[in-house]
Amino acid sequence: MSEKLWQGRFEQPTDKMVEEYTASIHFDSRLYRYDIEGSIAHCRMLADCGIISHEEASQIIQGLGEILREIERGELTLESSQEDIHMAVEQRLMQKIGEVGGKLHTARSRNDQIALDTRLYMRDVLLQCRRLLLEVMAALTDLAEKNLHVILPGFTHLQHAQPVLLAHHLMAYCEMFSRDEERMAQCYARTNVLPLGSAALAGTTFPIDMERTARYLGFPRVVRNSMDAVSDRDYLIEFCAAAALTMMHVSRLSEELVLWTTPEFDFVEISDAFCTGSSIMPQKKNPDVPELMRGKTGRVYGNLMALLTLTKGLPLTYNRDLQEDKEPVFDTADTLLATLAVLNKMLPALRFHEEKMAEAAARSFALATDVADYLVLKGVPFRKAHHVVGQLVSYCIREGKDLSECTLEEFRKFHKSLEEDIFELLDIRAAVDRRRSLGGTSTERVREALESMRAEIAVRTKAVERDVPAVP
Amino acid sequence: MSEKLWQGRFEQPTDKMVEEYTASIHFDSRLYRYDIEGSIAHCRMLADCGIISHEEASQIIQGLGEILREIERGELTLESSQEDIHMAVEQRLMQKIGEVGGKLHTARSRNDQIALDTRLYMRDVLLQCRRLLLEVMAALTDLAEKNLHVILPGFTHLQHAQPVLLAHHLMAYCEMFSRDEERMAQCYARTNVLPLGSAALAGTTFPIDMERTARYLGFPRVVRNSMDAVSDRDYLIEFCAAAALTMMHVSRLSEELVLWTTPEFDFVEISDAFCTGSSIMPQKKNPDVPELMRGKTGRVYGNLMALLTLTKGLPLTYNRDLQEDKEPVFDTADTLLATLAVLNKMLPALRFHEEKMAEAAARSFALATDVADYLVLKGVPFRKAHHVVGQLVSYCIREGKDLSECTLEEFRKFHKSLEEDIFELLDIRAAVDRRRSLGGTSTERVREALESMRAEIAVRTKAVERDVPAVP
Amino acid sequence: MSEKLWQGRFEQPTDKMVEEYTASIHFDSRLYRYDIEGSIAHCRMLADCGIISHEEASQIIQGLGEILREIERGELTLESSQEDIHMAVEQRLMQKIGEVGGKLHTARSRNDQIALDTRLYMRDVLLQCRRLLLEVMAALTDLAEKNLHVILPGFTHLQHAQPVLLAHHLMAYCEMFSRDEERMAQCYARTNVLPLGSAALAGTTFPIDMERTARYLGFPRVVRNSMDAVSDRDYLIEFCAAAALTMMHVSRLSEELVLWTTPEFDFVEISDAFCTGSSIMPQKKNPDVPELMRGKTGRVYGNLMALLTLTKGLPLTYNRDLQEDKEPVFDTADTLLATLAVLNKMLPALRFHEEKMAEAAARSFALATDVADYLVLKGVPFRKAHHVVGQLVSYCIREGKDLSECTLEEFRKFHKSLEEDIFELLDIRAAVDRRRSLGGTSTERVREALESMRAEIAVRTKAVERDVPAVP
Amino acid sequence: MSEKLWQGRFEQPTDKMVEEYTASIHFDSRLYRYDIEGSIAHCRMLADCGIISHEEASQIIQGLGEILREIERGELTLESSQEDIHMAVEQRLMQKIGEVGGKLHTARSRNDQIALDTRLYMRDVLLQCRRLLLEVMAALTDLAEKNLHVILPGFTHLQHAQPVLLAHHLMAYCEMFSRDEERMAQCYARTNVLPLGSAALAGTTFPIDMERTARYLGFPRVVRNSMDAVSDRDYLIEFCAAAALTMMHVSRLSEELVLWTTPEFDFVEISDAFCTGSSIMPQKKNPDVPELMRGKTGRVYGNLMALLTLTKGLPLTYNRDLQEDKEPVFDTADTLLATLAVLNKMLPALRFHEEKMAEAAARSFALATDVADYLVLKGVPFRKAHHVVGQLVSYCIREGKDLSECTLEEFRKFHKSLEEDIFELLDIRAAVDRRRSLGGTSTERVREALESMRAEIAVRTKAVERDVPAVP
Repeated sequence: MSEKLWQGRFEQPTDKMVEEYTASIHFDSRLYRYDIEGSIAHCRMLADCGIISHEEASQIIQGLGEILREIERGELTLESSQEDIHMAVEQRLMQKIGEVGGKLHTARSRNDQIALDTRLYMRDVLLQCRRLLLEVMAALTDLAEKNLHVILPGFTHLQHAQPVLLAHHLMAYCEMFSRDEERMAQCYARTNVLPLGSAALAGTTFPIDMERTARYLGFPRVVRNSMDAVSDRDYLIEFCAAAALTMMHVSRLSEELVLWTTPEFDFVEISDAFCTGSSIMPQKKNPDVPELMRGKTGRVYGNLMALLTLTKGLPLTYNRDLQEDKEPVFDTADTLLATLAVLNKMLPALRFHEEKMAEAAARSFALATDVADYLVLKGVPFRKAHHVVGQLVSYCIREGKDLSECTLEEFRKFHKSLEEDIFELLDIRAAVDRRRSLGGTSTERVREALESMRAEIAVRTKAVERDVPAVP
Repeated sequence: MSEKLWQGRFEQPTDKMVEEYTASIHFDSRLYRYDIEGSIAHCRMLADCGIISHEEASQIIQGLGEILREIERGELTLESSQEDIHMAVEQRLMQKIGEVGGKLHTARSRNDQIALDTRLYMRDVLLQCRRLLLEVMAALTDLAEKNLHVILPGFTHLQHAQPVLLAHHLMAYCEMFSRDEERMAQCYARTNVLPLGSAALAGTTFPIDMERTARYLGFPRVVRNSMDAVSDRDYLIEFCAAAALTMMHVSRLSEELVLWTTPEFDFVEISDAFCTGSSIMPQKKNPDVPELMRGKTGRVYGNLMALLTLTKGLPLTYNRDLQEDKEPVFDTADTLLATLAVLNKMLPALRFHEEKMAEAAARSFALATDVADYLVLKGVPFRKAHHVVGQLVSYCIREGKDLSECTLEEFRKFHKSLEEDIFELLDIRAAVDRRRSLGGTSTERVREALESMRAEIAVRTKAVERDVPAVP
Repeated sequence: MSEKLWQGRFEQPTDKMVEEYTASIHFDSRLYRYDIEGSIAHCRMLADCGIISHEEASQIIQGLGEILREIERGELTLESSQEDIHMAVEQRLMQKIGEVGGKLHTARSRNDQIALDTRLYMRDVLLQCRRLLLEVMAALTDLAEKNLHVILPGFTHLQHAQPVLLAHHLMAYCEMFSRDEERMAQCYARTNVLPLGSAALAGTTFPIDMERTARYLGFPRVVRNSMDAVSDRDYLIEFCAAAALTMMHVSRLSEELVLWTTPEFDFVEISDAFCTGSSIMPQKKNPDVPELMRGKTGRVYGNLMALLTLTKGLPLTYNRDLQEDKEPVFDTADTLLATLAVLNKMLPALRFHEEKMAEAAARSFALATDVADYLVLKGVPFRKAHHVVGQLVSYCIREGKDLSECTLEEFRKFHKSLEEDIFELLDIRAAVDRRRSLGGTSTERVREALESMRAEIAVRTKAVERDVPAVP
Repeated sequence: MSEKLWQGRFEQPTDKMVEEYTASIHFDSRLYRYDIEGSIAHCRMLADCGIISHEEASQIIQGLGEILREIERGELTLESSQEDIHMAVEQRLMQKIGEVGGKLHTARSRNDQIALDTRLYMRDVLLQCRRLLLEVMAALTDLAEKNLHVILPGFTHLQHAQPVLLAHHLMAYCEMFSRDEERMAQCYARTNVLPLGSAALAGTTFPIDMERTARYLGFPRVVRNSMDAVSDRDYLIEFCAAAALTMMHVSRLSEELVLWTTPEFDFVEISDAFCTGSSIMPQKKNPDVPELMRGKTGRVYGNLMALLTLTKGLPLTYNRDLQEDKEPVFDTADTLLATLAVLNKMLPALRFHEEKMAEAAARSFALATDVADYLVLKGVPFRKAHHVVGQLVSYCIREGKDLSECTLEEFRKFHKSLEEDIFELLDIRAAVDRRRSLGGTSTERVREALESMRAEIAVRTKAVERDVPAVP
């Protein structure tokens, strides 16, 4: 066990079990790159401001560079007694360059240092999320375009409601993911703020230049209140909330893929490469990937709840509880990024069974609304027309026939306004194309939607690239 | 039990217990005003587009106006057999104006109608939240300004860390609430979109003009996908997530008020008007309001979890599960609005005990960092300086004295660079004012922060007013 | 606004908005019956112990009885200024019988009084839950028995796995609900403890007899630590956790009913009395009840989370936050009791489509495992047998035929041990009946399971009735 | 990438990214010991029943034993392409002993195998939890006994309420943990059931003897329904709910330790061995351990929510989502066990500052209730007495004096029944000892409580040892 860097005031060493219980190095070591990057920027600024000499700065920066390489090569062992990544790097630095290494921690505290590290990490994660969401949106748009002619029954209450284009159905998901990307972009702006210089909680007495550190690290803004800066975890919780919504959307799509691959629905086939088999039943081919995606929603919700619980009722400013903020965030980020990447790859490999879908769309009185609308156009109040068609459907169920199998006489028993042209109405594709209201399922509207979505994806892709930090 | 408007197809009436289990009227009746407002706009549009006659539209609109007044005067009984507010209004309309009332539901469904009602409701709630958050921010800024000279110990780990201005402490909360307001404003933009015209899920075959309906209701945008429109609850969940963060901030402030009113801290007094007593202990004066605020965080978190669970894994589009979206949102909105209103009123009534705070700030070696920084300025590496001061503090604890009670000789036993001027350093106010880094606690920086916050509140207040829907 | 009973120490009246914010009477008034029942028992004990006179006790008890009747007849108005049900009853008592009413609160506090009220309430709720769970178990057992001959495909990953008896499938749910009932019974035992006499937190100086109060109220035990007694909310959280598990089980059953009523599955029909229609689509018949049951799982999870958040990190003993414990519990109890009651009524009204199920069970290579097992019995290692049958299935898919459509030659191309008797194997019912392991799906095993479940329901029903508090 | 054991039916290999996304080996490898133990018992039973030969069984069991040793020595590399621990062990077995290894999987599936592994794991965890909870209870009882004479102010609303014994305060926590232990014991009984033999979902066609397997593994019971057996995760969720309650209790105790170590309270000192320092502030000694314990409550709540979300609405039986059940459980178990172990070690190292506590107990009118009770004993109705004392306290606050500093004349201004003996009343210790009601804070009652708790701990410790599975 190494001596702690803050040991001066203590009479007794830390209990070994406590050392393990309180250590964070087994998970925050993952931030090493951000930690060192931040230290280098801090060190340059200290030298620029004359707080340490340029000579000292060079030594420190060189030492940090070497440590970075050691970690990347797996040459540096990180263990519980070093508490956390900050202490581990600083200790190693002092082993390498001696006492001058002790100057690096001037004008900062672990409280603002960890705030910096997680903001740098979150920037990367958010940029990756946004890129992947845009790719998923593009994949959905492609899939929609490829299947533009395919009709399936639109569902409400998981019952057949009205026929819709598969492309329209897929573009509904595209809308969801586009809101997700927007939320991630707004979270990015709130994350992209430099906290370093807030020190323990009150700011520092050293004549530092925070704007300069910000420039070195590509931050457009600096925090406005040091006490808030070291206790703020909003950006992490906000990310986890945005991720929960995204996973909720993924879980809905997954649910549909699981349903649609049952022998009963048989609307789609997922390629073998995305399925697995059973250890006991030789015939099984399971939609594991969408099942797991749906299942992983649970952990992302749980992580959000963990963070909200964690921060509830904490007095200002830093409390050790906050150390617990990282694992839920890492797990959320890993889960979300992997899920979006796999989704992105799985979507183009879906093979829709269009005949099955078309056949289903034609069943189950899916055009009953159209018959009611027909009556309305002939002057029947909608509520009345709805009632008439309801009785017509009830009759058909008793007779075991579909609407299109009724004779004109049968129709006219229910309402005298029903005439010969009712049969033209009962064409599925024509029915789809009649729904021309904005955002409706007609081929015309869906084609417009595809075009405008492509334009939007292009615009947002540029916005993401503009947001990549420009580091000198 | 009245006949259901959708009864046509059914052979059997709804079971009475099921009627109660599935009814939403006991909570969605609260949306009556939005429901009627939306129906009037829809009706005007139908007439404008020639789908119903202007004559019919007048009758309907007049009928709806009367129903609105009946509800407001408590003259209309709403009961379970009417299922929901939409059906209740439509039934009453048909009672009043006869069959022509049945024309109102042309080209729409309850699926897009409820989406409209909740968006209209959420617009109101979000505007109120934003106004209240801005008021709380102003109240905190006022309180900070009024107490600009007050110093208290800044805490980390609930231990004294370094002295800070009370104003700085209060402004940390102002920063939190300003992020909350920003999130609510962004949620507002995503909420402020017209879904009506999406009908059941696929759009409608009638030649409606959604842009016109949008104009009548003050929506700047129309939804882009009808299937998404009737199943989207993102804006509700996003609001609940933003509310959870806001309540988390409130819970932190509340925790501090509870702590600070203990006899042990005694930093603040909450006015009698905001406290209650005990039924058994005559001496008690309890900080009930902050306790309840902290407690109410639980329900807001729970509501968020309820909505996320609700929507997980639902296939497109509308499923009856979604009826369960309203109560958690209503409860969250009621809780948040009431909490912010009470907070707003309680803040100006706080009386801080500045001597108590100042006294506490001077204890507990709060200036130990300053001594270390002093050594650093004399060339000692920070890590070394930290160690030296740690040992000095340890010595003082053993001797039972404070830093300011040490002699120069005692100081110099620990490091020879400690000289006479060390005593100037040990002044609390000077120590505060030395922390001049951006966002730091010096009086100068805090004064700037107050000014810039006032400017920002003004700008945002205007933004809120610009966002109020302009209805013709 | 009435004067508060604890007003003595206060200089200023409570702010009106605060009065509303802190009042609980709009929800705890629901506990009036328990509150009065508890007060009567307390009063009798006080007189028994000579703390008040029997004369005084009579007056108080008579007054309380009148108040109970007033509330039940809706004659007593309860309003925010009365804070809570305890104060409202006490105020009314003093209006009725004068100052002697003020003797009722001797040797107790609202802290132990509310603990008593909620325990009395929870006892009732838990008994009702247990009875309803046993009824649901009986309904499932009946339904299973009635459909004992029906075979459907058992699913894993929502893919056909192996044929099973519908009765076996239904009894799986019966097992879940039987665990739920067991948990509720154990929660009941922890709830059934008298807290009254703990007073504010420390016990009381009056010579009370808590065993006697316990006897009057049918509690078998008295709390062992007064500080724990007034801050313990475990029994509420434990109930909410048990309810969350129960609703999870209900949600699984609901999901299946929703699936099975799709046109694609068409395994079951839910009676019209349990479905509703669409406001726009005349043909729709929606499985609203299972959808809502599934949806209501969300609020029950949310309530659990609300309570856990509420109690996290609260110091001893009573804190005002705890007032927030009731609404989540009431909502959970209402939701759970209503859901179980409706479920109980809906189950017997299900009509299964046995031909559809049987047909599905015969498809999709559901007997592939049986072929592998056949090979194993002929000495082929299972893993090898699994591989052989996997290839056989793959061949059948390519050829577009089912296993039963293969010739012996085709079979033997895959393994020479496959002989003529393989065709006997491919009978669905025989396959089901071969699964005779304990807990397996063979008719024999399922029949035994039905019998033993009936016996268990009988035993537990008696246990519930034994648990009903015996009040003198 | 190795060929999958279920590959027979598949045309395409699994996508590499999917292999990683779906693999569970990186976390379920942790179950290796249980997996192998279960396989050995299964294999013995297969041989006992004549399903495989004793010769084959010996080979398999020997192979499994070698694999166990290889894993324990770190010689076996486990990687994603092996999917999970079951497949990894089986593959390795076949490498070692050839095709006969393929006989092990006869009459079972991964579905019942994983159910077995997690039940074996949970048995161990639950036994450890119970032992640790009993140790914590013993530690609290010891601490209470050691400090039996110490008085502190009991708090409600974090305001001084009435003086209590520190021992009474500590024993309140002991009560909480004793409920936790009871819940864990009941969860243990529901966990301790053998699922193996349920196979994929329907039971098996092989003539297995499940009672025998149960005996080999020390299970007193066998599952009653195979479909429930492979989809039941109740015991995991129930454990996580019980753990959430336990952590809630720990968080309350932690909150108090954090409060009590502030300079303002200064009621207790936590030994240096359980605290850490600051990287910037040399004087800091932080109560990190209780802070972290409080913080870790969040992850345990989150894990519960993750599991509840996961299982909501899943149709029978096994769905791949369920693979996500393990990590939240492992994390909950690790967190809970480590927290209890550290708590256990930290409690005896607490040093209470009894003078500080006594001093605080004497302030703040803590005996006001006693004065009211005094008046009641003289015949004043309690409500009236409360009001009188409230005014007396209000007077004292204005005058800046404590109750004990008032003269008899001053007392009598408020009520003429206040006489000379009132001064005897105002002794803190006597006040504590007057609270003799059951569960009250008097020394007598607390001494009884300590004794009865010790007896209970002894009884329960024996119960735990009786529950340890007796494996032949």
